[in-house]
Amino acid sequence: MSTFTIDPKLRSWIPYTDDTDFPIQNLPLGIFSVGDGSGRVGSVIGDQIIDLSCLPGLTEATGIPKSVLTKDTLNDLIALGRPVARSLRKYLAEVFSAQNQNRSSFVHCLLPIDQVKLHMPVHCGDYTDFYSSREHATNVGIMFRDPANALLPNWLHIPVGYHGRASSIVVSGTPIHRPSGQIVPKEGEAPVFAKSKQLDFELEMAFVLGKENKLGEPIPIEQTEDYIHGLLAFNDWSARDIQKWEYVPLGPFLGKNFGSTCSPWLVDLDALQPFRTKGPEQDPKPLDYLQQAGTHHYDIRLEVFLNGSRICRSNMKYLYWSMNQQLAHHTVNGCNMRVGDICASGTISGPDPDSYGSMLELAWKGTKPIRLSDGSTRVFLQDGDRLEIRAYAEGPGYRIGFGPCEGEILG
Amino acid sequence: MSTFTIDPKLRSWIPYTDDTDFPIQNLPLGIFSVGDGSGRVGSVIGDQIIDLSCLPGLTEATGIPKSVLTKDTLNDLIALGRPVARSLRKYLAEVFSAQNQNRSSFVHCLLPIDQVKLHMPVHCGDYTDFYSSREHATNVGIMFRDPANALLPNWLHIPVGYHGRASSIVVSGTPIHRPSGQIVPKEGEAPVFAKSKQLDFELEMAFVLGKENKLGEPIPIEQTEDYIHGLLAFNDWSARDIQKWEYVPLGPFLGKNFGSTCSPWLVDLDALQPFRTKGPEQDPKPLDYLQQAGTHHYDIRLEVFLNGSRICRSNMKYLYWSMNQQLAHHTVNGCNMRVGDICASGTISGPDPDSYGSMLELAWKGTKPIRLSDGSTRVFLQDGDRLEIRAYAEGPGYRIGFGPCEGEILG
Repeated sequence: MSTFTIDPKLRSWIPYTDDTDFPIQNLPLGIFSVGDGSGRVGSVIGDQIIDLSCLPGLTEATGIPKSVLTKDTLNDLIALGRPVARSLRKYLAEVFSAQNQNRSSFVHCLLPIDQVKLHMPVHCGDYTDFYSSREHATNVGIMFRDPANALLPNWLHIPVGYHGRASSIVVSGTPIHRPSGQIVPKEGEAPVFAKSKQLDFELEMAFVLGKENKLGEPIPIEQTEDYIHGLLAFNDWSARDIQKWEYVPLGPFLGKNFGSTCSPWLVDLDALQPFRTKGPEQDPKPLDYLQQAGTHHYDIRLEVFLNGSRICRSNMKYLYWSMNQQLAHHTVNGCNMRVGDICASGTISGPDPDSYGSMLELAWKGTKPIRLSDGSTRVFLQDGDRLEIRAYAEGPGYRIGFGPCEGEILG
Repeated sequence: MSTFTIDPKLRSWIPYTDDTDFPIQNLPLGIFSVGDGSGRVGSVIGDQIIDLSCLPGLTEATGIPKSVLTKDTLNDLIALGRPVARSLRKYLAEVFSAQNQNRSSFVHCLLPIDQVKLHMPVHCGDYTDFYSSREHATNVGIMFRDPANALLPNWLHIPVGYHGRASSIVVSGTPIHRPSGQIVPKEGEAPVFAKSKQLDFELEMAFVLGKENKLGEPIPIEQTEDYIHGLLAFNDWSARDIQKWEYVPLGPFLGKNFGSTCSPWLVDLDALQPFRTKGPEQDPKPLDYLQQAGTHHYDIRLEVFLNGSRICRSNMKYLYWSMNQQLAHHTVNGCNMRVGDICASGTISGPDPDSYGSMLELAWKGTKPIRLSDGSTRVFLQDGDRLEIRAYAEGPGYRIGFGPCEGEILG
């Protein structure tokens, strides 16, 4: 796709350090509110929220009506399409560039990030979760099925995915209630009703649809990027004991739908273009509708912190199936996508044991407890645990980040 | 639950015959439009649509603001709650009762049903499909797994369900595109990309949520009926060949999400109260959170017509798990439901071979072709086939029906 990238050397008159998630090259979108006020559209530079509905000249420069900026979801804004999103990023880069001499017209539209509440960035009509990390699928196959045939026969042919629950996706910072459900205490015994004892996270990234297709009209793989507005960091919380008993034959249900957490910031695909990279070799060659030339993966560093201790370092580039392949597959039967729909990657595990994207894998089914900096150990999450995913692409002297994607476990 | 039932002997001044789906005892809700007009809320008696936004005195009698009646979904109306829904049914029963002498004030609010277009009745945030017919699960188990152990170990403990795709639920009358996808021509061979050759229907009923619960707060089984506004007839179209290759381990995906069809009319749970009946004995006894006293199944007759030939007669009462059990299970982990969410039953098969609710079962995996009245035979659906589900409860001298739930297959 053609692209609009903000000069990596550009600095803003809003001060920030090199390690901020939000330099002027990022300009992600989110929904914020102040006090009891209603949600509206914001961006962020450093630690300053930009109230887009307040900026003078924005509508004239971009054609975006103010009504779209005072909504409590991004859906109407991103539905305006990529050319409009580009003119917005161009306008913001000019206004907040260090070269802009007229700062006084804009400074009153800034709010310190710790004085606002951040909300779900989009209204998600349908949420799909893929299973696109070969390392993760292999690890799970080794642990629960046959180590010699860890990958199931369809895995290398299909970007396997399933429908998740949209209603229970919450924004970073929302506490997660430990779910209860049917659990089998010992293989072969009858199930009991109990709180999950195997509560886990899943380190994921997700893309958000900015354009719809009609029912019955697949999106060809070469057009998929027109439909992807941007990315979120994502945590697909999982209750392994509930999931294990329920998932045959129709897939995960109550083991997943008690909650998923996303980052408050939707990072534009344009901001991530400098970080495109090659994905893993695909053998066997996928069917024609899944084939693509060029680089379609993204070098986005992923870290997971449990109560402040880093327990995982992974990277989005480890995914076997690209977002383009996921979206082309999802719609090849004519399934229709709507603006705001979220498609998550599935757990992103890498080749090294410290790059595994879930506690199930990190603690290898409970056999290798994870040691935290306070000396305690974990095999699954305990009540009161605070788990945080951080995602960022690292450029020369700047990073494009997603802000924290975190949640605390309530008992 | 307490209930409000309209006297079975009451007649309307709108004429209809005893076999109409829409006597004055029914008064279902739907969304209709005329010409290029926008959608608004209607009910129906006989073959006359009632434009609710037009009726004098409705707001005064029920407290329902007119703005809610000119929306293009029922969500805001049903979110007003059961007491309001009851006062609406009471008002409509009075206005259209044969005893009402003041017909001239209301007759201008009627429109012949063949002069309107019917739309999706609700905006569905999340769609869940259960798998609650023991006969169906057993038939599938016999055909695809082990006849001696046809039911999987969890089936008698859990109302098994999975998340479906909300975006592709369409109203009766919408054509269905035959999906393409990955299909394995012969067991063990590599998949090819092709149009599905095993396109099937699934005879289902669905309930619609009229009340939300908060994330983290389960709905106890004894409260579940407060949350169910009413029922729809439902067809969960399925591409068996696509489904078979993709569904392990995360469940059905592209084999289902190309389309589902619902009836245009949402029948109030109150209208179905005279048809409550006992369900099958449950052994083993379900866990406490799934236990309930009393009758929680519904005697709703189901018929399926393929190009006008009746190919199936079943009944909703055959379901093993009740709607109450489905909803209590769905939320026991804290999963939140929203107004307009749809939960379908899964294929409703009965004990007799002509009560099986899918072509897979009726033609027993292709081995017993179904003969139609024109002499042709089918094992799965062909292009141009028109499949219709009819659902109705039969009372003394009247029936409570759902209107057709139909679709034609496009090649």
